[in-house]
Amino acid sequence: MNSSVVDLASAVKRASRQVAVASREERDAAILAAAQCLEELRELLLAANTKDLEAANGLLAAGEISQALYDRLTLTDKKLEEMAKSMQAVADLADPLGRILQRTELDSGLILEKVTCPLGVLAVIFEARPDAVTQITALALKSGNAVILKPGAEVEHTADALVEIVRKSLAESGLPADIVAMIKGRDAASELLNMSGMVDLVIPRGSKNLVEYVQANTRIPVLGHAEGICHVYVDAAADLNMALEIIDDAKTDYPAACNAAETVLVHESLATTFLPLLAERMRAKQVRLRGCKGTRAILREFSVDPVAENQWQHEYADLVLAVRVVPSIDEAISHIHEYGSSHTETIVTEDRAAAEKFLAQVDSAGVFHNASTRFADGYRYGLGAEVGISTNKLHARGPVGLEGLTTYKYVLRGGGQVARAYRGPDAKRFTHRLLPMK
Amino acid sequence: MNSSVVDLASAVKRASRQVAVASREERDAAILAAAQCLEELRELLLAANTKDLEAANGLLAAGEISQALYDRLTLTDKKLEEMAKSMQAVADLADPLGRILQRTELDSGLILEKVTCPLGVLAVIFEARPDAVTQITALALKSGNAVILKPGAEVEHTADALVEIVRKSLAESGLPADIVAMIKGRDAASELLNMSGMVDLVIPRGSKNLVEYVQANTRIPVLGHAEGICHVYVDAAADLNMALEIIDDAKTDYPAACNAAETVLVHESLATTFLPLLAERMRAKQVRLRGCKGTRAILREFSVDPVAENQWQHEYADLVLAVRVVPSIDEAISHIHEYGSSHTETIVTEDRAAAEKFLAQVDSAGVFHNASTRFADGYRYGLGAEVGISTNKLHARGPVGLEGLTTYKYVLRGGGQVARAYRGPDAKRFTHRLLPMK
Repeated sequence: MNSSVVDLASAVKRASRQVAVASREERDAAILAAAQCLEELRELLLAANTKDLEAANGLLAAGEISQALYDRLTLTDKKLEEMAKSMQAVADLADPLGRILQRTELDSGLILEKVTCPLGVLAVIFEARPDAVTQITALALKSGNAVILKPGAEVEHTADALVEIVRKSLAESGLPADIVAMIKGRDAASELLNMSGMVDLVIPRGSKNLVEYVQANTRIPVLGHAEGICHVYVDAAADLNMALEIIDDAKTDYPAACNAAETVLVHESLATTFLPLLAERMRAKQVRLRGCKGTRAILREFSVDPVAENQWQHEYADLVLAVRVVPSIDEAISHIHEYGSSHTETIVTEDRAAAEKFLAQVDSAGVFHNASTRFADGYRYGLGAEVGISTNKLHARGPVGLEGLTTYKYVLRGGGQVARAYRGPDAKRFTHRLLPMK
Repeated sequence: MNSSVVDLASAVKRASRQVAVASREERDAAILAAAQCLEELRELLLAANTKDLEAANGLLAAGEISQALYDRLTLTDKKLEEMAKSMQAVADLADPLGRILQRTELDSGLILEKVTCPLGVLAVIFEARPDAVTQITALALKSGNAVILKPGAEVEHTADALVEIVRKSLAESGLPADIVAMIKGRDAASELLNMSGMVDLVIPRGSKNLVEYVQANTRIPVLGHAEGICHVYVDAAADLNMALEIIDDAKTDYPAACNAAETVLVHESLATTFLPLLAERMRAKQVRLRGCKGTRAILREFSVDPVAENQWQHEYADLVLAVRVVPSIDEAISHIHEYGSSHTETIVTEDRAAAEKFLAQVDSAGVFHNASTRFADGYRYGLGAEVGISTNKLHARGPVGLEGLTTYKYVLRGGGQVARAYRGPDAKRFTHRLLPMK
């Protein structure tokens, strides 16, 4: 173990005890102070960003990074303004801490409360996005957590400058600077992933490879999803125009998003009618089709590549759509369970019973009826802020808001009660009465 | 990979899809049918148990197993009756599935529901308790989950007979027998722990060693706790009689329980008054004391062994109590964070501000004021059934009821809405209106 990473994590853990009990006002003030500094120290940030961009220029010329990554990396006045605004928006959210989830009278004068509280220490491993620093920091502070950030190498100078600003703002707000800290390099990251006693939750932000690496290399709980292989099932009783609209949106609105559709399953009873309509529509939208044998037979006039068996679980994240004809809703559901990533699936149908069957049986974080998979998103769900999307089943599933960064504890207030008094012949009896939450 | 374990797990996974959508009536009927069979097939079960006991006799004579384990292993008519009764009690609980946790109108005709549903497949690894089979099976069925059981070698014959009864009852109730299955042996168990795609939650039931082994050897989420190192802090403003009563209960009511106290922290201002009273009381209850330097100095007349630094995190699970004098409530809290297991801690004080500080700052699943740590228990909390106690922070913390075996999914019902309509100049607007849960 590198003692510097252990020391840093220990300092963050200690600081986490303080932010955990800071008042809402203190936490919000620190977020707002950091947001203000972003704008005031614009020159300093842009200068740091220039250093990252200089290194990135070479990589871009050598074709080692994409233009898209280069653009994400680039700070501008406008981006800084957006970053500051989005920190302010987090400060405005309702306090996720101290919410009473349940109140029970166990006996007269013995009251149990289940109360939300912070997780403790978050570790966030991200790639080339400077805005990850400010967004995650704001979410962590809002939820009373400390956070250790590990930026991608290509954004280190910018991240360094941002973290320094946040730490300064914390100190000026009277909170420990160590609530937010940063580590660099792969070795430090892999040490951090081994610190299951120090870190309560790891949040990877970036490519599928990054998420899979993190999931495979830590015993700390991970909030995230490696893939989004979402399905649209066009049922025998579908409204065909609605199906076309939904597939168009689910595929082309933002093909790189995890909630974009990768596969359309079409009930065989309408395959000959629907598939040519779909093929026309997709051609107009520059979407290439791939298909099962049945699809290709019907769409002989369109150039439809075959889908190999293992390709049904491929996330194209591009203007490519796989199409399969299925003999029944049961086969559609089986296909989703076999090849899906449990992210989000939708059924298009006018048959209410078929819809309810699909919603009940499909085991995914999001199950939709007559709506685009693209609605699977924290903002659209009305969560206020999105911490991430989870395809885990435990803790948080689907789009995760601030509550994903909290846990709860049981607070019991008594007057000297002992457990043995509730046993035996003269036992006192528990009342177990649910009380209003106040 | 042993193909038989993979095949078995695949069959259970398939069956899990069916129990997940079985009605409450079907699930309850299966539980009740199994409970009835327990009593009807008593002879068969006792005969199977006799085989386990014959093997255990030899081990007992050789001193390789304890009398306590032998007793736990032994089935009797009375125990079978209790097992059946406790299955019936689980059937009587409220249905944990299909509960609507939140309903939001995203837009007119676009309604989002967050609905509880089963986790999928549970794996339960347990030691010498025949009743683990029936209790876990009932809880799994009630919560719509399938379950793979791995019994300790010493209880295999009994577990086999019990599982056969449950499988037969399932089949007779019209549900797949593979909702409940059993594997034997360490190799099979270690394969199972590697099947993160097949199993959603592992529940170890048994010794600290078993729990630690499971935690260290799987990436599947584990529900459990290896240790319970619970603290009683006797504050400067404590009612001394109340403190004695609470410590007595927390230590002696059931010393082997995870919610029994291991360490008492005493504020130095009352150490000279309180410690002799505590020593007298503990002597009367056959509790041996261990202490810090200050404690031993005050209790010179009592034989108090020293506590080595690393012993503060030892779970005695016996009539042994460690005592430390602390200069302040802050030091008490630091001690708990340094040496505790985040299970349950209590403060004894008449000072409300000190109590609230302790309840807010101590980062444990249970934080109590003027009540025994022994209340940290699913039954006492009024949870209906206890699936386990968790010192994890994610998913479920503290005593876990049936809801710990559930997750949720987001169900969205629309009328053809697409996401891109909510962007751009003529964008539709989300209403994000919370609706009654019905």
